[in-house]
Amino acid sequence: MKNQKRIRDFSITIGEMKTGKYNSITDVPGVKVGHSTLNEGDIKTGVTAILPHDGNMFKKKVVGACHVINGFGKSIGLTQIKELGNIETPIVLTNTLSVGTAHKALVKYMLSIDKDIKSLNPVVGECNDGYLNDIRGLHIKEHHIFQAIENATVEFEEGNVGAGTGMVCYGLKGGIGTASRIVNIEDEDYTVGVLVLSNFGLMKDLMINRIPIGKKLAEHIEEKNKKDKGSIILIVATNIPLSYRQLKRVIKRTNPGIARTGGFISHGSGEIAIGFSTGNIINHNRDKGTLDIKILNESYINQVFRATSEATEEAILNSLICSNTTTGIDGNTVYSLSTFRI
Amino acid sequence: MKNQKRIRDFSITIGEMKTGKYNSITDVPGVKVGHSTLNEGDIKTGVTAILPHDGNMFKKKVVGACHVINGFGKSIGLTQIKELGNIETPIVLTNTLSVGTAHKALVKYMLSIDKDIKSLNPVVGECNDGYLNDIRGLHIKEHHIFQAIENATVEFEEGNVGAGTGMVCYGLKGGIGTASRIVNIEDEDYTVGVLVLSNFGLMKDLMINRIPIGKKLAEHIEEKNKKDKGSIILIVATNIPLSYRQLKRVIKRTNPGIARTGGFISHGSGEIAIGFSTGNIINHNRDKGTLDIKILNESYINQVFRATSEATEEAILNSLICSNTTTGIDGNTVYSLSTFRI
Amino acid sequence: MKNQKRIRDFSITIGEMKTGKYNSITDVPGVKVGHSTLNEGDIKTGVTAILPHDGNMFKKKVVGACHVINGFGKSIGLTQIKELGNIETPIVLTNTLSVGTAHKALVKYMLSIDKDIKSLNPVVGECNDGYLNDIRGLHIKEHHIFQAIENATVEFEEGNVGAGTGMVCYGLKGGIGTASRIVNIEDEDYTVGVLVLSNFGLMKDLMINRIPIGKKLAEHIEEKNKKDKGSIILIVATNIPLSYRQLKRVIKRTNPGIARTGGFISHGSGEIAIGFSTGNIINHNRDKGTLDIKILNESYINQVFRATSEATEEAILNSLICSNTTTGIDGNTVYSLSTFRI
Amino acid sequence: MKNQKRIRDFSITIGEMKTGKYNSITDVPGVKVGHSTLNEGDIKTGVTAILPHDGNMFKKKVVGACHVINGFGKSIGLTQIKELGNIETPIVLTNTLSVGTAHKALVKYMLSIDKDIKSLNPVVGECNDGYLNDIRGLHIKEHHIFQAIENATVEFEEGNVGAGTGMVCYGLKGGIGTASRIVNIEDEDYTVGVLVLSNFGLMKDLMINRIPIGKKLAEHIEEKNKKDKGSIILIVATNIPLSYRQLKRVIKRTNPGIARTGGFISHGSGEIAIGFSTGNIINHNRDKGTLDIKILNESYINQVFRATSEATEEAILNSLICSNTTTGIDGNTVYSLSTFRI
Repeated sequence: MKNQKRIRDFSITIGEMKTGKYNSITDVPGVKVGHSTLNEGDIKTGVTAILPHDGNMFKKKVVGACHVINGFGKSIGLTQIKELGNIETPIVLTNTLSVGTAHKALVKYMLSIDKDIKSLNPVVGECNDGYLNDIRGLHIKEHHIFQAIENATVEFEEGNVGAGTGMVCYGLKGGIGTASRIVNIEDEDYTVGVLVLSNFGLMKDLMINRIPIGKKLAEHIEEKNKKDKGSIILIVATNIPLSYRQLKRVIKRTNPGIARTGGFISHGSGEIAIGFSTGNIINHNRDKGTLDIKILNESYINQVFRATSEATEEAILNSLICSNTTTGIDGNTVYSLSTFRI
Repeated sequence: MKNQKRIRDFSITIGEMKTGKYNSITDVPGVKVGHSTLNEGDIKTGVTAILPHDGNMFKKKVVGACHVINGFGKSIGLTQIKELGNIETPIVLTNTLSVGTAHKALVKYMLSIDKDIKSLNPVVGECNDGYLNDIRGLHIKEHHIFQAIENATVEFEEGNVGAGTGMVCYGLKGGIGTASRIVNIEDEDYTVGVLVLSNFGLMKDLMINRIPIGKKLAEHIEEKNKKDKGSIILIVATNIPLSYRQLKRVIKRTNPGIARTGGFISHGSGEIAIGFSTGNIINHNRDKGTLDIKILNESYINQVFRATSEATEEAILNSLICSNTTTGIDGNTVYSLSTFRI
Repeated sequence: MKNQKRIRDFSITIGEMKTGKYNSITDVPGVKVGHSTLNEGDIKTGVTAILPHDGNMFKKKVVGACHVINGFGKSIGLTQIKELGNIETPIVLTNTLSVGTAHKALVKYMLSIDKDIKSLNPVVGECNDGYLNDIRGLHIKEHHIFQAIENATVEFEEGNVGAGTGMVCYGLKGGIGTASRIVNIEDEDYTVGVLVLSNFGLMKDLMINRIPIGKKLAEHIEEKNKKDKGSIILIVATNIPLSYRQLKRVIKRTNPGIARTGGFISHGSGEIAIGFSTGNIINHNRDKGTLDIKILNESYINQVFRATSEATEEAILNSLICSNTTTGIDGNTVYSLSTFRI
Repeated sequence: MKNQKRIRDFSITIGEMKTGKYNSITDVPGVKVGHSTLNEGDIKTGVTAILPHDGNMFKKKVVGACHVINGFGKSIGLTQIKELGNIETPIVLTNTLSVGTAHKALVKYMLSIDKDIKSLNPVVGECNDGYLNDIRGLHIKEHHIFQAIENATVEFEEGNVGAGTGMVCYGLKGGIGTASRIVNIEDEDYTVGVLVLSNFGLMKDLMINRIPIGKKLAEHIEEKNKKDKGSIILIVATNIPLSYRQLKRVIKRTNPGIARTGGFISHGSGEIAIGFSTGNIINHNRDKGTLDIKILNESYINQVFRATSEATEEAILNSLICSNTTTGIDGNTVYSLSTFRI
C-alpha cells in the first residue's frame, strides 16, 4: 500500500480468491496498523502495532487464539489467550530482546486509558533482527511503542518498516507484509486478513507462486547467514464470527501458506500465529448468566482455511518485495527482492 | 441408587453444594446410563453405556470435550472431540483389551439407526480389570455393548456392575459411582453430573471426606497388588450451555476431586475426563451460514468448577461403598469398603 | 518398488537430498511393511501394517511420537504415545469403520506372542474409503490384519493396495506411497523414511514438484466428489536416536511436505503423523534406576526436518502415480494420475 | 528457614517421605534463591529469583518443562521451554504488571555476563498482589531484579518476602514457601524441591493436613476479597536425570498437592508449574552428532510424583505460616495464619 509496488503489481496472483479493497489486514473493519521505525546506522529495528478496534480493548475484548508452529520464540501473552480465548490489548511486534519493553509500555498505555485495570495480558510478538540490528544495544524505548499505537491507520507501509526494519527472509530483506481475502458465506461477504513479520528461510528455498526463484538467486548471491534461525509472526484478523476453537483451527492454516513460499519450519524458528475475530465482542463486565453469540456453521470453514493460506503466502511475498536493500551492523548487507528481475 | 447404600447414607457429606434429585449423572435431563455385567468365576468384567440423549446422536451431536490427566490409557475418540468439540455416539466404558470390540459394536449400532453414516467417531473409555478378571480371555462380545445401551435408564446401579465389575480402587473394590450438583446461575437451576469408573490408588492413600481412612485400613489388610497401575475414567455431563473451551476448563476440575480422595496421579494410570453439554445441540445438517448459540457468562464458572470437583469426589466414594467384596481370577480377593465400619 | 513406475521414473526429483536404497520407509534398518488387499466389486479396501522391527514389540518398544495436524480422524493409540513416548505394537492402517476390528486383531496378535500382556496400546490409523468402497459393509475381518502383518517385507507395493485400495487423493486414485532420505550427521549416515496413506485434497490444488498440474486436469475432468473430506496418515521412521520431544518436532515437518503437493489441511481431514525411532529401544522390563540413552545434538535437526518434508512430498506423489484407475461402489470411478501425460 | 517457624514446627507432618536437609528447594545441589522486598506503606511487592546453578545459564542450560494448570496468567518464557525442553536464565517471580520490567532486567543481566547472546528466553512467573500493593504504581525497577539475583543463597526467608510480599492465599497472608523430599532410587538419594508463590483460594476451603481449618476461620473472620482470583506459581527442582517428557509428567503432580490444601483451580487463577532438572546439563555449544544422556527408569517415577505432591502441599502451608499480618493499599489488612492457634 501507500505507493509501494506489491507482488500483484508484478502480475503475480496468489491463489484463486478475491482480495479485499486494500489487500490488507486492515480490510477487516476496525483493524488498524501503525509503525515506529528506527533506521540509522547500526540501528535497524522498530515496532509495529495491530489494533483490533478503536475502543478500549480491555473492556471490549475480541475473541482470540494462538498457534505455535515452532516454539523457538519469545512471544508473550499466549498462555492466557489459550485459556480464555480472548485478546485485551493491541498486539505489538518488535525485536526479541525488546519484548520486556513492549510489555511495560503496553501496561502503561492500558493503565492510562482505563483506571480499573489491575491485571492485564499484553500480547507481544517478536523476531530476531540481530543480523542487521545492534540488538544488544536495546534501542527500543517505551515511547516507540506508544508511537506505533498512535500511528495506527488503515493504509500503512510494508517492508522494512516498524518491527520489520531489520528482518531477513529467505536471505533477502524481509519485514512487514500483508494481504486479505474475501469469504462469501451464504451471500454475506466477510474478510480474512493476514499480517506477517517475516524473518525466516534460506534463499535457495524461496518459491514465488510455486516458481523456485530462490534456487537461481542462490547460485548468484552468496548467502552469508546460512543458518536458518529465523522466525515469523503471523497475525490473522477476521470479522467472521468464530468461536475460540474455530479461530484456532483457522490460524493453523497459515502453515501451508508459509510452506508454499518455501519454508519447512526450521529448528531455530519462532513461528507463531495469533488470531482474532471481531465478529463477537466480549464485554469485560457481563451481567447475564448466559450470553448469546454467533459462530460459523463449520461446514463453511474450508473457504476460511483457504483464505488464510492464500493471504499468508501473499503477505510473505509482499514483505519481501516491499523491502529495500539494507546495510546494518557489522556491514552486513541484505538485498531486496526488488533488485532482481522477477 | 436402586436401594444401594451410598456414602451420604453414612452421614458423610462431600462439599457444600446441593445435589440433584438422584445425586446422579442422570439428573442432567435426558442423560441415561445402562450396564451389561459379566460376573461368573474368573470373568469379572462388563460394559457401561452413557447416553447423552435419547435421539440419534449422530444427527444431534452434543458439545463435547476431553482432558487427559494422565495418558497411560487406551480410550478412543479423543482426537476428534478435541478438533470438533462434539460427541456423536453414546459413550461406552469397558476393559482395556475390549476397546476394539466396543468400537465395532458402536459402529454397528449407529449404522443400524442411521443409513447415511459413512464416517463415525465412537467414544470408548477403559480401565484394566486384569487383577480380578480373565482379561486375556476377551469375554466382552458385541452384544454386551448393545445390551448396555438398551438397558440405559435414569436409575441405575453403582459399584461392581457393568464396566465396574472387576475394578479395584485404593486396594478396595471399586467400579461405577456417580453424583451430581445443582448450580444456580442468575435464578436458573442447572445440573452438573459425574460418573466414574474407578480403578486407581493405593489403600494407604484413601481419604474419605478428608479423613485418612486408608492409612488405618492398610495397617490391617495386606494389599497384594501394590503397584498403583490403576486408572479412572470420568464422565462429566451438564445442561449448562458451554462452549468447547468452557467445557474443557470444567472437566479439568475433576482433578482436585480425585486428589481429595487421596490420588496423586500415578504413572500407570489412564486418567481421562470426557464431558458433554446438552445445553447446545449441534445438528449434523446445518444450512445457515452462522449459528446462534448460548454460552455461559464465564464470571459464573467457578460454581461449575466447584460442582465438578465435589461431584467427582463423591462419585469415587460411591463407587467404593456400593461395591461388594469380589474374588476373581487366580483367587484374588478384593474387599468392599462396606465391610469396614466407617 | 516391485516393478512399479514411481515419480522419479518420470524424471521428477523432489528436493535436494539423497534417497535410501529403495527410496522407502523400509530403508530404515529393521522396518517392514505388509498389505492385505480386498479388491472385488464394491469392496475396495484393505489393511497395511508397518513393523518397526522383527522382535516382540511389547518387550522391545520403540521411541514413538504423534502429531495431529487436523483431528477430524479416528486413529487410536495416540493418547498413550503422547504420555509415554513409545510404541509397543505394529502400526496398522485401514478404513475408518474398521478401526475396532484392527484393534481387536492387534490385541489377539500380541497376546499370542507374549503370555504376560494384560494391557496393550494398539496403534491404528485410518482414512475413509467410502467413495469407492462399501465401507458400511464392514468387510475387514481380523484375519486380514494378521495377513498384513505376516506379509510384511522390505520390498512392498505402493498405490491401490492394502489400506490404500479405496483411497482418493486430489480427485485421483490415491493410497499407499513411500520415500526416504539419507541424513549425514558427523560422518554417520542415518535414514528417514515416510509412508503415507493418502486420501485428501481437491484436484484443482494438486502440484507436482511445484507445477500446478491439478489446475489443468480439473479443467478436463469432472471431479464429482468435490467436498474435500479426505485424510492422510503419515508414518515417519528413522534410526537417528531421538528423544520423544525431538521426534515430535521431526514429524511435524510432514506438514510442509503435504502443503507442497497442494493441500491446505481441509476441515474434514484426519491428518495425523505417527513417528518412531529405532535409535533407542526401550525394554519393557528395566532394572537399573537410570538409563543411558543417545539423543541427537539438536543443532543438526534441520537436516532431519528437511528430510522429513522431502520424503513426505515424494511419498504422496508415489501414492498417486503407483495407483490404478479404479471403479467401485455406486459405479464411482477414480482415475490414476498415470493415465495423464505428466 | 532462617529462624522462621514452619509448619513442621507445629508438629504437622505432610506425607510420608523424608525431607532434605533444609526442607527447601535449595536442597537440590546448586540451587539458590534470593529476594528483593518492597514493603513500605502502599507498596507491598518484590522479586524472588531462583538460580538453577551458579554458572552461565545460557551456556549451561538445564532441562526444563512447564505445565499450565490454569492459564489466567501472564508468565513468560513458556513457549520456548515447551519446544526446546530447557531453561537458559534464572527464573524470576514478581507481580503481574512488572513482568516486562523483569524481562528487561533479565536480558540486561544475561547480556552482561555473556557477550555472545543475541537471543534469549527469559523466564518470569507472576501473581497479582493488587489487593495489598499499589500495583498500578509499577514500583518494581530493574535493580530490584538484579538485587534478587545477587541475594541468592541456600538459606532464604519464606512468607511475605520478595515476590510474596503482597500475596494473599486462602484469605490469609500468603507468599513464598518451600519444601523438599528425598527420593531413593536403587540406593541413590536424589532430591525434589518445590518453591511456591501462593496467591489463591478462599478461606473457607483451606485444609491443613486434611483438617478443614478454613471453614472455622471463615466463621470468625470476614473475608473481604471474596472473589477467588488468585494464582500460584510452582517451581519444581530436582537432580534426578529426567528427560523433558518425564519432567513434564513430574511437575503435573503439583496439582494434587494444591488440591489437598483446598484449592479447586479457580477461574481467575494463573496456576503454572515450571520445573528443571540439573541431572543433565545441556551445553549451548555442542560438537558431537549425538549426545549421551541419562534418564530415569520410568518404573521408578511414582516416587518422584509423590515427592512432588507432598513438597507442594507443604510449601503452600509454609508460605502461609511464615507470613506476617499485613496492611496495605486502601487499608486492606490480611491476617497471618500464625495469629490463630493451629
